[in-house]
Amino acid sequence: MANYGVIFNGSSVDKHVIAGGNVPFLSSDRMLGGIYLGNRGMRTTPQSQLAHAQRIMEEETDSEYESQRYPTLEATKPGEKPRVVVLGSGWAACRFLKGIDTRIYDAVCISPRNHMVFTPLLASTCVGTLEFRSVAEPVSQIQKALAKDPNSYFFLASCTAVDTDNHEVYCRTVDDGDSSHEPYQFKVSYDKLVIATGAEPSTFSIKGVKEHAFFLREVTHAQEIRKKLLLNLMLSQYPGISEEEKERLLHCVVIGGGPTGVEFSGELSDFIMRDVRHQYTHVKNYIRVTLIEANEILSSFDVGLRQYATKHLTKCGVRLVRGVVKEVYPNKIILSDGSEVPYGLLVWSTGVGPSEFVRSLNFPKSPGGRIGVDEWLRVPSVEDVFALGDCAGFLEHVGRPVLPALAQVAERQGKFLVELFKGIGKNNGGKAYSAKDVPLGDPFVYKHLGSMASVGRYKALVDLRESKDGKGLTLAGFISWFIWRSAYLTRVISWRNRFYVAVNWATTLVFGRDNSRIE
Amino acid sequence: MANYGVIFNGSSVDKHVIAGGNVPFLSSDRMLGGIYLGNRGMRTTPQSQLAHAQRIMEEETDSEYESQRYPTLEATKPGEKPRVVVLGSGWAACRFLKGIDTRIYDAVCISPRNHMVFTPLLASTCVGTLEFRSVAEPVSQIQKALAKDPNSYFFLASCTAVDTDNHEVYCRTVDDGDSSHEPYQFKVSYDKLVIATGAEPSTFSIKGVKEHAFFLREVTHAQEIRKKLLLNLMLSQYPGISEEEKERLLHCVVIGGGPTGVEFSGELSDFIMRDVRHQYTHVKNYIRVTLIEANEILSSFDVGLRQYATKHLTKCGVRLVRGVVKEVYPNKIILSDGSEVPYGLLVWSTGVGPSEFVRSLNFPKSPGGRIGVDEWLRVPSVEDVFALGDCAGFLEHVGRPVLPALAQVAERQGKFLVELFKGIGKNNGGKAYSAKDVPLGDPFVYKHLGSMASVGRYKALVDLRESKDGKGLTLAGFISWFIWRSAYLTRVISWRNRFYVAVNWATTLVFGRDNSRIE
Repeated sequence: MANYGVIFNGSSVDKHVIAGGNVPFLSSDRMLGGIYLGNRGMRTTPQSQLAHAQRIMEEETDSEYESQRYPTLEATKPGEKPRVVVLGSGWAACRFLKGIDTRIYDAVCISPRNHMVFTPLLASTCVGTLEFRSVAEPVSQIQKALAKDPNSYFFLASCTAVDTDNHEVYCRTVDDGDSSHEPYQFKVSYDKLVIATGAEPSTFSIKGVKEHAFFLREVTHAQEIRKKLLLNLMLSQYPGISEEEKERLLHCVVIGGGPTGVEFSGELSDFIMRDVRHQYTHVKNYIRVTLIEANEILSSFDVGLRQYATKHLTKCGVRLVRGVVKEVYPNKIILSDGSEVPYGLLVWSTGVGPSEFVRSLNFPKSPGGRIGVDEWLRVPSVEDVFALGDCAGFLEHVGRPVLPALAQVAERQGKFLVELFKGIGKNNGGKAYSAKDVPLGDPFVYKHLGSMASVGRYKALVDLRESKDGKGLTLAGFISWFIWRSAYLTRVISWRNRFYVAVNWATTLVFGRDNSRIE
Repeated sequence: MANYGVIFNGSSVDKHVIAGGNVPFLSSDRMLGGIYLGNRGMRTTPQSQLAHAQRIMEEETDSEYESQRYPTLEATKPGEKPRVVVLGSGWAACRFLKGIDTRIYDAVCISPRNHMVFTPLLASTCVGTLEFRSVAEPVSQIQKALAKDPNSYFFLASCTAVDTDNHEVYCRTVDDGDSSHEPYQFKVSYDKLVIATGAEPSTFSIKGVKEHAFFLREVTHAQEIRKKLLLNLMLSQYPGISEEEKERLLHCVVIGGGPTGVEFSGELSDFIMRDVRHQYTHVKNYIRVTLIEANEILSSFDVGLRQYATKHLTKCGVRLVRGVVKEVYPNKIILSDGSEVPYGLLVWSTGVGPSEFVRSLNFPKSPGGRIGVDEWLRVPSVEDVFALGDCAGFLEHVGRPVLPALAQVAERQGKFLVELFKGIGKNNGGKAYSAKDVPLGDPFVYKHLGSMASVGRYKALVDLRESKDGKGLTLAGFISWFIWRSAYLTRVISWRNRFYVAVNWATTLVFGRDNSRIE
């Protein structure tokens, strides 16, 4: 077991966490010495001893030594409720948190963002169809115990390492570039740990993507895209801007023809047809949308729906291009056939891969590099650790395929884990190291309910087949769009946001989109 | 007249404009040489000649020489409509733009922000009572011709200099820290120029204010305050945070007891009493609001209302402190009596003074350093230039006091100028140098309609006296609050935002405030 205690791959996590911020009171090397694992002895280290600790680590990586004095949310005592620590605040984490029985467990959620993002509607916020706030739901609204119960907490922080031997996670303040407070580090003890930290956009190591492209995963991403789009619309009106430069500034390029890329393209073209034509008459003829995809758009959808989407997008003015991106420069993309595509706005949505945090954990991994889990979403090599959502995948020996990175999967897994935890709790298995003999019941089975994608202009696709080659109902058009909106509206978690999304949609219909550009 | 052509005080404007950004293709000194005035000769200068131009400027500041080749929106030709260039997008600029007769004039608005901010409601957005978007109105919605008419424009840019001899303004791209586009410079010719660039918060040169305090003038300011407040609420819950540090983090200090300071304090205490108590139960007993004012709060209001406000704020838990700030450190304020006030959030609202741009213009100034105007809001030393709102004040010889920096004044002046311009236009005085003999009609007279301020918890003050020592109706309490809300609701410019503000208020009443923290 002690083998898996050493699950901190210092160099990569550290780079990730420190990026852009100040190192606290320690240099990053020293801090690694401080954080580094297996600290069963004295629980504190005066700073002066850290250089010593660092030396020990270099000589003998598995030995015991004293650790940095971190403030700690100490382990629960006998008689107290067991504590479930949840890492993340996405679909999986929030579905689990929503359902967890707070009479049995105390819950602690640790995430660098205090809200869940309703990702399927994010594309709509970029062009002002929806307000940003309408697609974000505070975690403490999803599970009120986090704010109200004396022993439940939400910590706005990043998890930097997991010490499975001591049942502790290491956390650090999120650095917003606000230098008025030092980064703060602390530990949280857990009885059960649920890892749901999600995935990161894949860039396939293509040069320039991280620097120049926008992703579309967080509300901040949508805000940046919106700012850039409105900025370019305004820059292109300046006196003396050449025709060529106008065309470049107003060329919106989307890479990746999955549902997100298609929905964003559709929303953009809808925005152009409905709003840009009226509100930016000086430059309306220059704005274009190009969607570049290496294979087929919406490859997981039924062939009829794919054809419908292709036809509809083309009709709305989206240019569909087959191509593979080779390199990205500030103002142009180079495709693998050597052609150049000048752009003003570049949105990258080619799917996701394991995050730096997940890569740094040395649990056995699933195919594709996710945290490996068994049929009950447990990390089988250690006790009391579970993983779900985009960061988790079935281990190879489980004999089941790694599930797609979909909200639907994450939500279903969250729900499954709620029930599993209820069973464990009722059998007195909630505390650390006490669930070994608890019966787990049926394993998690994923049944695909179907896929939906909006393609803009009141049109959407609904594919209710259970698998790519299965049979079932497929729909395209206005009725699908109505189903798409209704389905999402009922899944938006709070009544407050459900109300706001409806109001936003109605307002857009009546007044058009808002185009104030708040910096 | 040529004397006033030299209205570019290079060093200060330049610092202002370049702050934080890259200099374009020229060094700042060279650019000064390029921009510098009186360029009646050839309209372009190859870059190589700029060093030469700079030398000339040093030797003989009023001579003619060639200027940098800037892209230009050229002067209107005979037969074309006269062009009014408006600098700014605040109350004065937008009221003027809203009313301008676009059958007579083409309008060009130049401002670093594309929306008007409904400032009286800004304090409410910090704590989530209102959404940010609800208090911002796109300029092109206020005057649709800016987006639709072929010869009207909105340019997202800062004005850096005015050349009154050539009837041109110099503009530069707003730099958002986005390095993908070079700062772009251009010129716009005007027939009439309306300067309404507003004022800047006064810091009285107190050390540390600019670095550590938040202002409350723009939507971005409100967003930053909100982020900081929610961050501090979350940081204070971390394990191991001392009692003292919790108290510091959750100590919100407001400097300045004018309407903005009082409204923000009231909203904050309301937020604490209604929302923090429920949503942040771990730290609810640590959060406090202190309002520091050197003299009396709301000094322009009736004495009865002042007493009411003092009593009400105290009851809501706002600590009122008489004091003068001497210096501001990242985590504490030093008062002039030597006492220290630790804080987690510091909001500075001690009124406004002339902006760097206004100081750089060498028009004769009013008492207090604003652009000096006559009773018709003209800058009398030059032709075809008008100034209004917070950036303008009556010249001493006019014999009238400089008006307070209020939305009410700015709006009234905007409205006055609309009529003045109508008259000028109808008398064929719209073109440059052609209004000399046009009768101007009655001068601008300001009649104070009264003041309002909300103090939180459904209470507000309404003071309908015409002057500080005059007589008239004064009201305080719930009815005032109702009047306050209704009055602002009817003044919010578009139906879209009127609708949103009403929806926001209703939602807050039903669901409480939203506390998602979008970065």
